[in-house]
Amino acid sequence: MTQPEPEIVEEIKAANQRFYDAFSALDISGMDNVWENSERAMCVHPGWTPLVGWESIRMSWDRIFQNANLMQFQIRYLNVVVQGEFGCITCVEGINSVVQGNAGSFSTFATNVFARYEDGWRMVAHHASGSG
Amino acid sequence: MTQPEPEIVEEIKAANQRFYDAFSALDISGMDNVWENSERAMCVHPGWTPLVGWESIRMSWDRIFQNANLMQFQIRYLNVVVQGEFGCITCVEGINSVVQGNAGSFSTFATNVFARYEDGWRMVAHHASGSG
Repeated sequence: MTQPEPEIVEEIKAANQRFYDAFSALDISGMDNVWENSERAMCVHPGWTPLVGWESIRMSWDRIFQNANLMQFQIRYLNVVVQGEFGCITCVEGINSVVQGNAGSFSTFATNVFARYEDGWRMVAHHASGSG
Repeated sequence: MTQPEPEIVEEIKAANQRFYDAFSALDISGMDNVWENSERAMCVHPGWTPLVGWESIRMSWDRIFQNANLMQFQIRYLNVVVQGEFGCITCVEGINSVVQGNAGSFSTFATNVFARYEDGWRMVAHHASGSG
Protein backbone atom coordinates (compact mmCIF):
# COMPACT_ATOMS: atom_id res chain seq x y z
CA MET A 1 0.00 0.00 0.00
CA THR A 2 1.46 3.30 -1.08
CA GLN A 3 0.10 6.80 -0.75
CA PRO A 4 -1.97 7.58 -3.86
CA GLU A 5 -0.86 10.39 -6.17
CA PRO A 6 -2.82 13.55 -5.30
CA GLU A 7 -3.81 14.14 -8.94
CA ILE A 8 -5.33 10.65 -9.17
CA VAL A 9 -7.31 11.29 -5.99
CA GLU A 10 -8.57 14.53 -7.56
CA GLU A 11 -9.55 12.70 -10.76
CA ILE A 12 -11.64 10.20 -8.80
CA LYS A 13 -13.22 12.94 -6.70
CA ALA A 14 -14.11 14.74 -9.94
CA ALA A 15 -15.78 11.57 -11.26
CA ASN A 16 -17.62 11.29 -7.93
CA GLN A 17 -18.74 14.91 -8.24
CA ARG A 18 -20.05 14.26 -11.79
CA PHE A 19 -22.20 11.50 -10.33
CA TYR A 20 -23.77 13.89 -7.81
CA ASP A 21 -24.10 16.57 -10.50
CA ALA A 22 -26.11 14.17 -12.68
CA PHE A 23 -28.13 13.12 -9.62
CA SER A 24 -28.91 16.79 -8.72
CA ALA A 25 -29.79 17.57 -12.33
CA LEU A 26 -32.08 14.47 -12.42
CA ASP A 27 -30.23 13.82 -15.68
CA ILE A 28 -30.39 10.25 -16.94
CA SER A 29 -28.00 10.87 -19.85
CA GLY A 30 -25.56 12.31 -17.31
CA MET A 31 -25.82 8.98 -15.46
CA ASP A 32 -25.12 7.16 -18.75
CA ASN A 33 -21.82 9.04 -18.92
CA VAL A 34 -20.87 8.64 -15.26
CA TRP A 35 -21.52 4.91 -14.91
CA GLU A 36 -19.82 1.95 -16.50
CA ASN A 37 -22.65 0.67 -18.73
CA SER A 38 -21.83 -2.96 -18.00
CA GLU A 39 -23.33 -6.12 -16.59
CA ARG A 40 -20.96 -5.99 -13.62
CA ALA A 41 -22.12 -2.56 -12.43
CA MET A 42 -23.79 -2.70 -9.00
CA CYS A 43 -26.01 -0.27 -7.11
CA VAL A 44 -27.60 -0.28 -3.64
CA HIS A 45 -30.02 2.59 -3.06
CA PRO A 46 -30.85 3.11 0.65
CA GLY A 47 -33.24 0.35 1.71
CA TRP A 48 -33.35 -1.26 -1.75
CA THR A 49 -32.23 -4.72 -2.76
CA PRO A 50 -28.93 -4.53 -4.69
CA LEU A 51 -29.25 -4.01 -8.43
CA VAL A 52 -26.72 -5.68 -10.70
CA GLY A 53 -26.17 -4.69 -14.33
CA TRP A 54 -26.50 -1.28 -15.94
CA GLU A 55 -29.93 -2.01 -17.45
CA SER A 56 -31.56 -2.46 -14.00
CA ILE A 57 -29.56 0.38 -12.49
CA ARG A 58 -30.53 2.79 -15.26
CA MET A 59 -34.22 1.92 -14.80
CA SER A 60 -33.88 2.67 -11.08
CA TRP A 61 -32.45 6.14 -11.78
CA ASP A 62 -35.24 6.76 -14.26
CA ARG A 63 -37.78 5.86 -11.58
CA ILE A 64 -36.04 8.00 -8.92
CA PHE A 65 -35.82 10.97 -11.30
CA GLN A 66 -39.50 10.66 -12.22
CA ASN A 67 -40.49 10.90 -8.54
CA ALA A 68 -38.03 13.60 -7.50
CA ASN A 69 -38.76 17.30 -7.84
CA LEU A 70 -35.50 18.47 -6.27
CA MET A 71 -32.28 16.79 -5.11
CA GLN A 72 -29.40 18.85 -3.72
CA PHE A 73 -26.19 17.32 -2.40
CA GLN A 74 -23.47 18.51 -0.08
CA ILE A 75 -20.70 15.90 -0.22
CA ARG A 76 -18.24 15.42 2.63
CA TYR A 77 -15.34 13.07 1.91
CA LEU A 78 -14.36 10.55 4.56
CA ASN A 79 -11.98 8.34 2.65
CA VAL A 80 -10.43 7.79 -0.77
CA VAL A 81 -8.66 4.54 -1.62
CA VAL A 82 -6.74 4.14 -4.89
CA GLN A 83 -5.22 0.88 -6.04
CA GLY A 84 -4.07 0.80 -9.66
CA GLU A 85 -7.08 1.07 -11.95
CA PHE A 86 -9.60 1.17 -9.10
CA GLY A 87 -10.77 3.90 -6.78
CA CYS A 88 -13.10 3.70 -3.78
CA ILE A 89 -14.61 6.74 -2.10
CA THR A 90 -16.62 6.88 1.11
CA CYS A 91 -18.58 10.04 1.67
CA VAL A 92 -21.44 11.58 3.58
CA GLU A 93 -24.26 12.73 1.30
CA GLY A 94 -25.96 15.74 2.90
CA ILE A 95 -29.27 15.86 1.02
CA ASN A 96 -32.04 18.41 0.59
CA SER A 97 -34.84 16.88 -1.42
CA VAL A 98 -38.38 17.29 -2.60
CA VAL A 99 -39.79 13.90 -3.58
CA GLN A 100 -43.42 13.56 -4.64
CA GLY A 101 -44.03 17.01 -3.17
CA ASN A 102 -42.51 16.22 0.26
CA ALA A 103 -39.46 18.21 1.37
CA GLY A 104 -36.77 16.47 3.39
CA SER A 105 -33.30 17.14 4.72
CA PHE A 106 -31.11 14.22 5.79
CA SER A 107 -27.73 12.50 5.50
CA THR A 108 -26.79 9.16 4.01
CA PHE A 109 -23.46 7.36 3.66
CA ALA A 110 -22.16 6.13 0.34
CA THR A 111 -19.33 3.94 -0.83
CA ASN A 112 -18.63 4.64 -4.50
CA VAL A 113 -16.29 2.50 -6.56
CA PHE A 114 -14.69 3.63 -9.82
CA ALA A 115 -12.77 1.83 -12.56
CA ARG A 116 -10.26 3.63 -14.77
CA TYR A 117 -10.67 3.76 -18.53
CA GLU A 118 -8.59 5.42 -21.23
CA ASP A 119 -11.02 8.35 -21.22
CA GLY A 120 -11.40 8.60 -17.43
CA TRP A 121 -13.02 7.02 -14.38
CA ARG A 122 -16.42 5.35 -14.43
CA MET A 123 -18.63 4.38 -11.50
CA VAL A 124 -18.88 0.62 -11.17
CA ALA A 125 -20.51 0.36 -7.74
CA HIS A 126 -22.61 2.62 -5.51
CA HIS A 127 -23.75 1.50 -2.07
CA ALA A 128 -25.74 4.07 -0.11
CA SER A 129 -27.43 3.62 3.24
CA GLY A 130 -29.00 5.70 5.96
CA SER A 131 -27.83 6.20 9.49
CA GLY A 132 -30.94 4.74 11.14
CA MET B 1 -13.41 -4.04 -19.06
CA THR B 2 -12.51 -7.69 -19.58
CA GLN B 3 -13.95 -10.81 -17.99
CA PRO B 4 -11.98 -11.59 -14.81
CA GLU B 5 -10.00 -14.81 -14.59
CA PRO B 6 -12.08 -17.43 -12.74
CA GLU B 7 -9.20 -18.27 -10.36
CA ILE B 8 -8.90 -14.61 -9.33
CA VAL B 9 -12.63 -14.46 -8.66
CA GLU B 10 -12.25 -17.58 -6.49
CA GLU B 11 -9.35 -16.02 -4.59
CA ILE B 12 -11.40 -12.94 -3.75
CA LYS B 13 -14.41 -15.05 -2.77
CA ALA B 14 -12.09 -17.06 -0.47
CA ALA B 15 -10.89 -13.81 1.16
CA ASN B 16 -14.54 -12.78 1.53
CA GLN B 17 -15.33 -16.14 3.13
CA ARG B 18 -12.43 -15.72 5.59
CA PHE B 19 -14.03 -12.44 6.67
CA TYR B 20 -17.34 -14.16 7.44
CA ASP B 21 -15.49 -17.06 9.10
CA ALA B 22 -13.76 -14.62 11.46
CA PHE B 23 -17.09 -12.85 12.03
CA SER B 24 -18.86 -16.16 12.83
CA ALA B 25 -16.02 -17.21 15.13
CA LEU B 26 -16.17 -13.78 16.87
CA ASP B 27 -12.42 -13.89 16.34
CA ILE B 28 -10.65 -10.53 16.52
CA SER B 29 -7.26 -11.96 15.52
CA GLY B 30 -8.98 -13.48 12.48
CA MET B 31 -10.15 -9.96 11.62
CA ASP B 32 -6.55 -8.72 12.00
CA ASN B 33 -5.56 -11.19 9.28
CA VAL B 34 -8.51 -10.52 6.97
CA TRP B 35 -8.37 -6.72 6.97
CA GLU B 36 -5.77 -4.35 5.66
CA ASN B 37 -4.48 -2.86 8.93
CA SER B 38 -4.18 0.62 7.46
CA GLU B 39 -5.43 4.14 7.89
CA ARG B 40 -7.31 3.96 4.59
CA ALA B 41 -9.46 0.98 5.63
CA MET B 42 -13.18 1.86 5.82
CA CYS B 43 -16.15 0.15 7.44
CA VAL B 44 -19.89 0.88 7.58
CA HIS B 45 -21.82 -1.39 9.93
CA PRO B 46 -25.60 -1.28 9.33
CA GLY B 47 -26.93 1.97 10.78
CA TRP B 48 -23.50 3.14 12.00
CA THR B 49 -21.53 6.18 10.93
CA PRO B 50 -18.62 5.14 8.68
CA LEU B 51 -15.40 4.22 10.46
CA VAL B 52 -12.11 5.10 8.80
CA GLY B 53 -8.77 3.57 9.82
CA TRP B 54 -8.05 0.11 11.15
CA GLU B 55 -7.76 1.25 14.78
CA SER B 56 -11.41 2.44 14.90
CA ILE B 57 -12.61 -0.51 12.83
CA ARG B 58 -10.86 -3.03 15.07
CA MET B 59 -12.45 -1.43 18.16
CA SER B 60 -15.89 -1.77 16.53
CA TRP B 61 -15.36 -5.51 15.93
CA ASP B 62 -14.21 -5.90 19.51
CA ARG B 63 -17.40 -4.22 20.69
CA ILE B 64 -19.61 -6.29 18.35
CA PHE B 65 -17.91 -9.53 19.42
CA GLN B 66 -18.31 -8.66 23.10
CA ASN B 67 -22.08 -8.25 22.64
CA ALA B 68 -22.66 -11.21 20.31
CA ASN B 69 -23.29 -14.72 21.59
CA LEU B 70 -23.78 -16.26 18.13
CA MET B 71 -23.37 -15.09 14.54
CA GLN B 72 -24.00 -17.46 11.63
CA PHE B 73 -23.77 -16.39 7.99
CA GLN B 74 -25.14 -17.77 4.77
CA ILE B 75 -23.54 -15.75 1.97
CA ARG B 76 -25.18 -15.38 -1.43
CA TYR B 77 -23.04 -13.73 -4.10
CA LEU B 78 -24.66 -11.12 -6.32
CA ASN B 79 -21.65 -9.64 -8.06
CA VAL B 80 -17.86 -9.81 -8.23
CA VAL B 81 -15.84 -7.08 -9.94
CA VAL B 82 -12.10 -7.47 -10.48
CA GLN B 83 -9.89 -4.73 -11.86
CA GLY B 84 -6.15 -5.32 -11.52
CA GLU B 85 -5.19 -5.31 -7.87
CA PHE B 86 -8.72 -4.58 -6.64
CA GLY B 87 -11.78 -6.72 -6.12
CA CYS B 88 -15.31 -5.71 -5.16
CA ILE B 89 -17.95 -8.19 -4.03
CA THR B 90 -21.63 -7.55 -3.41
CA CYS B 91 -23.44 -10.20 -1.41
CA VAL B 92 -26.49 -10.93 0.65
CA GLU B 93 -25.63 -11.81 4.24
CA GLY B 94 -28.24 -14.23 5.55
CA ILE B 95 -27.74 -13.98 9.32
CA ASN B 96 -28.80 -15.99 12.34
CA SER B 97 -27.68 -14.24 15.47
CA VAL B 98 -27.95 -14.13 19.21
CA VAL B 99 -26.94 -10.68 20.47
CA GLN B 100 -27.19 -9.81 24.16
CA GLY B 101 -29.40 -12.88 24.57
CA ASN B 102 -31.84 -11.96 21.76
CA ALA B 103 -32.13 -14.34 18.81
CA GLY B 104 -32.70 -12.88 15.34
CA SER B 105 -32.80 -14.01 11.74
CA PHE B 106 -32.46 -11.44 8.97
CA SER B 107 -30.67 -10.43 5.79
CA THR B 108 -28.36 -7.53 5.08
CA PHE B 109 -26.51 -6.44 1.94
CA ALA B 110 -22.78 -5.90 1.88
CA THR B 111 -20.29 -4.41 -0.54
CA ASN B 112 -16.82 -5.69 0.31
CA VAL B 113 -13.68 -4.29 -1.32
CA PHE B 114 -10.34 -6.10 -1.38
CA ALA B 115 -6.82 -5.05 -2.32
CA ARG B 116 -4.24 -7.54 -3.56
CA TYR B 117 -0.96 -8.08 -1.71
CA GLU B 118 1.94 -10.43 -2.37
CA ASP B 119 0.52 -12.84 0.20
CA GLY B 120 -3.13 -12.53 -0.86
CA TRP B 121 -6.19 -10.30 -0.74
CA ARG B 122 -7.07 -8.04 2.18
CA MET B 123 -10.36 -6.31 2.94
CA VAL B 124 -10.04 -2.56 2.58
CA ALA B 125 -13.73 -1.57 2.72
CA HIS B 126 -16.93 -3.12 4.08
CA HIS B 127 -20.29 -1.37 3.67
CA ALA B 128 -23.26 -3.27 5.06
CA SER B 129 -26.86 -2.10 5.27
CA GLY B 130 -30.29 -3.50 5.91
CA SER B 131 -33.21 -3.77 3.56
CA GLY B 132 -35.53 -1.57 5.61
